[in-house]
Amino acid sequence: MTDQSPIVRADGRTPADLRPVTIERGWSAHAEGSALISFGGTKVLCTASFTNGVPRWMNGSGKGWVTAEYAMLPRSTNTRNDREAVKGRIGGRTHEISRLIGRSLRAVVDTKALGENTVVIDCDVLQADGGTRTAAITGAYVALADAIEWARGKKFIGQRSVPLIDTVSAVSVGIIDGTPMLDLMYTEDVRAETDMNVVATGRGLFVEVQGTAEGAPFDRRELDGLLDLALAGNAELAEIQRSVLAAAAGAAE
Amino acid sequence: MTDQSPIVRADGRTPADLRPVTIERGWSAHAEGSALISFGGTKVLCTASFTNGVPRWMNGSGKGWVTAEYAMLPRSTNTRNDREAVKGRIGGRTHEISRLIGRSLRAVVDTKALGENTVVIDCDVLQADGGTRTAAITGAYVALADAIEWARGKKFIGQRSVPLIDTVSAVSVGIIDGTPMLDLMYTEDVRAETDMNVVATGRGLFVEVQGTAEGAPFDRRELDGLLDLALAGNAELAEIQRSVLAAAAGAAE
Amino acid sequence: MTDQSPIVRADGRTPADLRPVTIERGWSAHAEGSALISFGGTKVLCTASFTNGVPRWMNGSGKGWVTAEYAMLPRSTNTRNDREAVKGRIGGRTHEISRLIGRSLRAVVDTKALGENTVVIDCDVLQADGGTRTAAITGAYVALADAIEWARGKKFIGQRSVPLIDTVSAVSVGIIDGTPMLDLMYTEDVRAETDMNVVATGRGLFVEVQGTAEGAPFDRRELDGLLDLALAGNAELAEIQRSVLAAAAGAAE
Amino acid sequence: MTDQSPIVRADGRTPADLRPVTIERGWSAHAEGSALISFGGTKVLCTASFTNGVPRWMNGSGKGWVTAEYAMLPRSTNTRNDREAVKGRIGGRTHEISRLIGRSLRAVVDTKALGENTVVIDCDVLQADGGTRTAAITGAYVALADAIEWARGKKFIGQRSVPLIDTVSAVSVGIIDGTPMLDLMYTEDVRAETDMNVVATGRGLFVEVQGTAEGAPFDRRELDGLLDLALAGNAELAEIQRSVLAAAAGAAE
Amino acid sequence: MTDQSPIVRADGRTPADLRPVTIERGWSAHAEGSALISFGGTKVLCTASFTNGVPRWMNGSGKGWVTAEYAMLPRSTNTRNDREAVKGRIGGRTHEISRLIGRSLRAVVDTKALGENTVVIDCDVLQADGGTRTAAITGAYVALADAIEWARGKKFIGQRSVPLIDTVSAVSVGIIDGTPMLDLMYTEDVRAETDMNVVATGRGLFVEVQGTAEGAPFDRRELDGLLDLALAGNAELAEIQRSVLAAAAGAAE
Amino acid sequence: MTDQSPIVRADGRTPADLRPVTIERGWSAHAEGSALISFGGTKVLCTASFTNGVPRWMNGSGKGWVTAEYAMLPRSTNTRNDREAVKGRIGGRTHEISRLIGRSLRAVVDTKALGENTVVIDCDVLQADGGTRTAAITGAYVALADAIEWARGKKFIGQRSVPLIDTVSAVSVGIIDGTPMLDLMYTEDVRAETDMNVVATGRGLFVEVQGTAEGAPFDRRELDGLLDLALAGNAELAEIQRSVLAAAAGAAE
Repeated sequence: MTDQSPIVRADGRTPADLRPVTIERGWSAHAEGSALISFGGTKVLCTASFTNGVPRWMNGSGKGWVTAEYAMLPRSTNTRNDREAVKGRIGGRTHEISRLIGRSLRAVVDTKALGENTVVIDCDVLQADGGTRTAAITGAYVALADAIEWARGKKFIGQRSVPLIDTVSAVSVGIIDGTPMLDLMYTEDVRAETDMNVVATGRGLFVEVQGTAEGAPFDRRELDGLLDLALAGNAELAEIQRSVLAAAAGAAE
Repeated sequence: MTDQSPIVRADGRTPADLRPVTIERGWSAHAEGSALISFGGTKVLCTASFTNGVPRWMNGSGKGWVTAEYAMLPRSTNTRNDREAVKGRIGGRTHEISRLIGRSLRAVVDTKALGENTVVIDCDVLQADGGTRTAAITGAYVALADAIEWARGKKFIGQRSVPLIDTVSAVSVGIIDGTPMLDLMYTEDVRAETDMNVVATGRGLFVEVQGTAEGAPFDRRELDGLLDLALAGNAELAEIQRSVLAAAAGAAE
Repeated sequence: MTDQSPIVRADGRTPADLRPVTIERGWSAHAEGSALISFGGTKVLCTASFTNGVPRWMNGSGKGWVTAEYAMLPRSTNTRNDREAVKGRIGGRTHEISRLIGRSLRAVVDTKALGENTVVIDCDVLQADGGTRTAAITGAYVALADAIEWARGKKFIGQRSVPLIDTVSAVSVGIIDGTPMLDLMYTEDVRAETDMNVVATGRGLFVEVQGTAEGAPFDRRELDGLLDLALAGNAELAEIQRSVLAAAAGAAE
Repeated sequence: MTDQSPIVRADGRTPADLRPVTIERGWSAHAEGSALISFGGTKVLCTASFTNGVPRWMNGSGKGWVTAEYAMLPRSTNTRNDREAVKGRIGGRTHEISRLIGRSLRAVVDTKALGENTVVIDCDVLQADGGTRTAAITGAYVALADAIEWARGKKFIGQRSVPLIDTVSAVSVGIIDGTPMLDLMYTEDVRAETDMNVVATGRGLFVEVQGTAEGAPFDRRELDGLLDLALAGNAELAEIQRSVLAAAAGAAE
Repeated sequence: MTDQSPIVRADGRTPADLRPVTIERGWSAHAEGSALISFGGTKVLCTASFTNGVPRWMNGSGKGWVTAEYAMLPRSTNTRNDREAVKGRIGGRTHEISRLIGRSLRAVVDTKALGENTVVIDCDVLQADGGTRTAAITGAYVALADAIEWARGKKFIGQRSVPLIDTVSAVSVGIIDGTPMLDLMYTEDVRAETDMNVVATGRGLFVEVQGTAEGAPFDRRELDGLLDLALAGNAELAEIQRSVLAAAAGAAE
Repeated sequence: MTDQSPIVRADGRTPADLRPVTIERGWSAHAEGSALISFGGTKVLCTASFTNGVPRWMNGSGKGWVTAEYAMLPRSTNTRNDREAVKGRIGGRTHEISRLIGRSLRAVVDTKALGENTVVIDCDVLQADGGTRTAAITGAYVALADAIEWARGKKFIGQRSVPLIDTVSAVSVGIIDGTPMLDLMYTEDVRAETDMNVVATGRGLFVEVQGTAEGAPFDRRELDGLLDLALAGNAELAEIQRSVLAAAAGAAE
């Protein structure tokens, strides 16, 4: 591990650099909250749909519900994938990522403060270049925050309720040729020996840590290096989220 | 029917006006051809995926194949719809529109000139405000044209082959309070007594005429008025397609 | 287009002739209304199932509901098709035709006069020789009319209620070798350059107009010729429906 | 058990009587063999589709394959059932009966003599009044026999090959109020304490015996009484099949 | 048929011998009743899940409901079978056996005495060597009996209620080389000319008789021989069930 | 975090104790390798099915393929779950765990040394009490090792090939009331604030690290404590695997 060396990545980044991140708030005219987020060439449209009431099994609990669905457009990738609707079943990877996004958001939601309301977050990948799930989580938070402000405006949530107890973002890290790198793009992702997605809050706490040895198993020192990089990356993303949300609210009406 | 009266629609249009139409060519970094088209608040991402070879049942025919799939993002509409992938089956409306788009494109394709190649067009509605199928057909043509030019550049299609024998576009027309109107937006669509989608070529020939009495059945004179309006609208759309395609090619590489 | 020439079709008809049409009312011992209709070699069994109550989303509306399902027996065609139940999904064509039949019938139903009752029409093609959807609509109307009379007898519908405000029928037209022809049989259907299905009421108003360029796009004059032929054919079918319904009621009890 | 008493059933039959059985051979213009069979109010359309070749797993075996599919039209019964194609899955009862029909036919087929050809039998219940599976088997045999003669005419089967080594038919029997009865109609079927379907060959051998205690378990003597009745009923059915097949061949061409 | 000759089967049994039968009661720590049953190399885990209430269509009937589901682990057999959950549909054989188990159990249940409670029996084949459905029925009875005793202990069933009016078991019989044999193992099953499953009560009454000619149809004398053997085998199984249930209750708590 | 305090868990363990682990090798008479593993009350049957050849997309690669499927019996848990085969779709959790098991095993497989052969591992949970996925991975390794030895005996794998480059096992860890604990049983699992599954090799390298904040997000120090505990637990499991595999081979033949 030699991250002090002058390694330059294919797109000019150093190992510890994020790709350019942009968040277009209020992209959708219909959704209560929405964000078109890009991590370099990865573009994900995140919409938050707010409805009163909760699934039947939560009725009367006094708590709200936040869930998420992730999908990729068929030609968001380099070669076209068949639609899951056409295949008639959702693949394992899609399920796994949808569940991850939902869990990540719920980790910063005070469901009591949300009241018996439901927010469904849809994350649709319009273009993929690695890190679609981490971009989705990061953008989903912004859409969720706007949907909650919308609901406050409609008085569906009390003026002093604070359903969001922290921000949440996510970033990938991986070891390539022995070097830990932040925010892998697709060509890096396929070469990584180890691949890790780290979801963290704005306060720097872990929500999810998912590391997989794609090539060779990894040792404790390598794991520590990846975690350092991921926490730093998430701190940057949290800052971007805060500044985007500090601007005037987007288009949802 | 009083289309000479000074009727002004909710968005300021006269009965014979299209909504503002924009076509962003080459929106996708991956697809061989792509276009993000908007008819007012309706936004559809059209990508064309070009591959060598044809489905097994066409092997050796010397002919190519063009097909299309249409879908709506769950929150492209005013209230969220469940994903068809989650429901595990594609609804009748989705099937019907996918088939319509495919037939419309094939009407202007010389499959012999295309050779044994396949183009799959994906039309994903990012935001819906009426006329999603007509916007999809109009944008799909641009994506298809670019994919064919890409293939010519790659020598998958001969330099003198002309797979596209005409342009094709589509527009909706309908009768509202007795007045035929062009290019209905959602609030107009739900009020229309009669609703018609007309697909036409750049030369002004009909490819598809689909008229439905939503309220009361309609007579021959009303039908004639709608057809006049639709042919004029399609002529405008054909002109927009031509000018967009005359500009420098988009991003696909 | 030379429809004045002495063109004779394979089965001896002139271009403007319907095939022999027979309607066997009350074919089913169980259904509240039923008709076995044949357009030449095309035979469709139409049953109407009347039940009190409406789907949940219509509860309390004071209105009734009419819907339809279309299907083909596996060996109704020249070569056997796999059952959709075995494939586990309904194809696009089946969906499209089921929706067309339902819309066509609803165009002549006063749902207020029907009251909160539901009629489901099943159209099962026992033998196919072109025009299955148009035979289905034409026969479905007869089954529907009988089911409504049955319900009146049972006092589910008021004695003075008139749920059916007109009759409805359908016929196909197409251009073959430049000549517009009425009521295409299978061997004609596959050769037609343009194929159109026209649903019309007994008063001669249009309910649906669906024209598709199978071969070359068609011009306004050709469209007009097809519409003329279709209205004449539907007028004949309306007359047949009226005379069948004027006879003593069929077998449903 | 008092079957010597003058018991008269609702439709005037004695306990040992079949309902009126009619077989309309060659009902279908398309199928290689077909029969519309009725057992009283039960009407089943049986078509036999003959194709050259066998499923992949039988390739090169020198043997043929016979299989069957059973289904009921939605309104063949007293109240409408949802279509299995709409539900997206085939129910257990449908599977069970399809498998039974296939096994019953294969019991009288010499698959070597059939050669590498496949016959698919479709049995679609147009109207149901009890005994649909037994009518289906009995009619399916006739359709199969005609399909084999068709294939012999086409020289797909040798002139001296005898693929059918016997006839096969089926009938239901049941105990009602202590009396064994033959060929139960629907109102009897629901009252039967024990219900048995017996498939037998023209020579009087058993192919399938399926008895179920619907009410109370049954003893050996009762079982013997039912088997006697069933063999007699099948002997009658075999005679009807023979006389129908001895007549001039039906419509398939 | 020469069952008096000294025929010795591959595992040393005479034609009239059962395989070694073991029943491990209370195998599951969670289920209200459970049994791991083996018929030689066939091992089936049967669990009974008792819940208060009945399916909606039985509400208020005062009667209980007993149903069963059967499945095989993918590698319970000699070569691996794809999971039905992965294929997305349950095969005909699975449906058929699940229904058979449910019917067999209900034949000895007094649903009035059970009250409005539901017992679901799951029979999962861990290892298969012929006779899985008969082992499943035999083991399911033991699981059901224990679940009912558990419910009595919980006062969900009255102290004097007798929901089980008899015991029930099942065994296969078949004719191999002309000899009727009891309880076929897999290698015998594939060779049998006729195969029969007989479900009987402890009092020796028939619940189900399902005989199939796998090879040649069979005559009345052969059927009688098989029934004799099956009743004797079931009498032995009933005795084993009684002695197992007479021992101290198993593990469910 | 006070793991030096004399904390005693409900089943008498200290925070750093595994539950009793037993591995019954060769449980299945049919599978090429098998193991019935228990972690306390959690029992998983793991079978390894070895077949020659690989999926089509790997043909000619010279490499083998190892994959896994996980499922739970419906009553393996405290309350019955519907079968996924009955629901017709596999849930997200099942997909996720199946994929995890497959990846974990492949991390210790040299696919070149395996040759073009496939091993499918089925892990069926017979009884669940927390940690089913970690027990499954640990048992699956034993089944895989035996299947590979079986294949070596059959000469499907060369005598000097070493397809397994390390052992692999897995264990859960979690923080309960601030204390990190090893190998959570069900009642602990539902109380854990943080839940982590760690897959590691016999050499102590990480294969997968999956940590989730169920309650509150966790900090770096807590993560470190959990990783320490998990590596120690996996070292114990590796030792158990080695001693089980050192004994005489199991039942597969």
